[in-house]
Amino acid sequence: MEECIFCKIVNGEIPCSKVYENDKVIAFLDIAPVNKGHTLVVPKEHSKDIMDTSADTLAEIMKVVKKVAKSVMKVTGAEGFNLGVNNGKVAGQLVMHLHFHIMPRFEEDGFKLWEGKKYEGKEAEEIAEKIRSLL
Amino acid sequence: MEECIFCKIVNGEIPCSKVYENDKVIAFLDIAPVNKGHTLVVPKEHSKDIMDTSADTLAEIMKVVKKVAKSVMKVTGAEGFNLGVNNGKVAGQLVMHLHFHIMPRFEEDGFKLWEGKKYEGKEAEEIAEKIRSLL
Repeated sequence: MEECIFCKIVNGEIPCSKVYENDKVIAFLDIAPVNKGHTLVVPKEHSKDIMDTSADTLAEIMKVVKKVAKSVMKVTGAEGFNLGVNNGKVAGQLVMHLHFHIMPRFEEDGFKLWEGKKYEGKEAEEIAEKIRSLL
Repeated sequence: MEECIFCKIVNGEIPCSKVYENDKVIAFLDIAPVNKGHTLVVPKEHSKDIMDTSADTLAEIMKVVKKVAKSVMKVTGAEGFNLGVNNGKVAGQLVMHLHFHIMPRFEEDGFKLWEGKKYEGKEAEEIAEKIRSLL
């Protein structure tokens, strides 16, 4: 992917603050961190999103997430982290090369999670039934 | 885990709007959805968080995420989704049994992502170096 910024990082054409690399996955700091130490875990082979990525690569990414998050927490002193993938433009994906965000978290750091709504009546069971029927 | 609400769901002691189940993983609707169809993917065996979960189980969860998210998007008409794990109380984890959120997304649905900050000078490279040194 000639014009993909993350492919250019993988290929060393654009610098990054790298924290980890193996043959399949690279991890580097997000340049616009929620909190310092916010790290991206990225498959080296270009894929757009979760749907576009093999189960093997997703498994490898999660191994690296687990390993890197531990180190991010030690270094930053965070007691927890949010893992996030924005899958698709409507979900806020800016770079169209799959990346998992590891965001270290602290008390009262200003990060706001989503707010939950409610289902009415049998709505939840009806939606679940539809989702089940397509699996 | 006697008092764990998700273990009770796994064991059928508490009802849920189930969308998928295999021998290792269960998926059901979040009762407080960001948007309708918001689904949780949960390992059947109790583990607290990502650190506490085996690579095999994380791989299996990601397989189910990929499969279920496709169906959630078809049913809801969403063009994308956010995948999220709140890992630890400080990160907003409410049920201390690992769960991956699949949140279908729509234009102007009111969901707000995190805001990025900035690094100064060589700060990013210094933090990356510390994280690397622990891996």
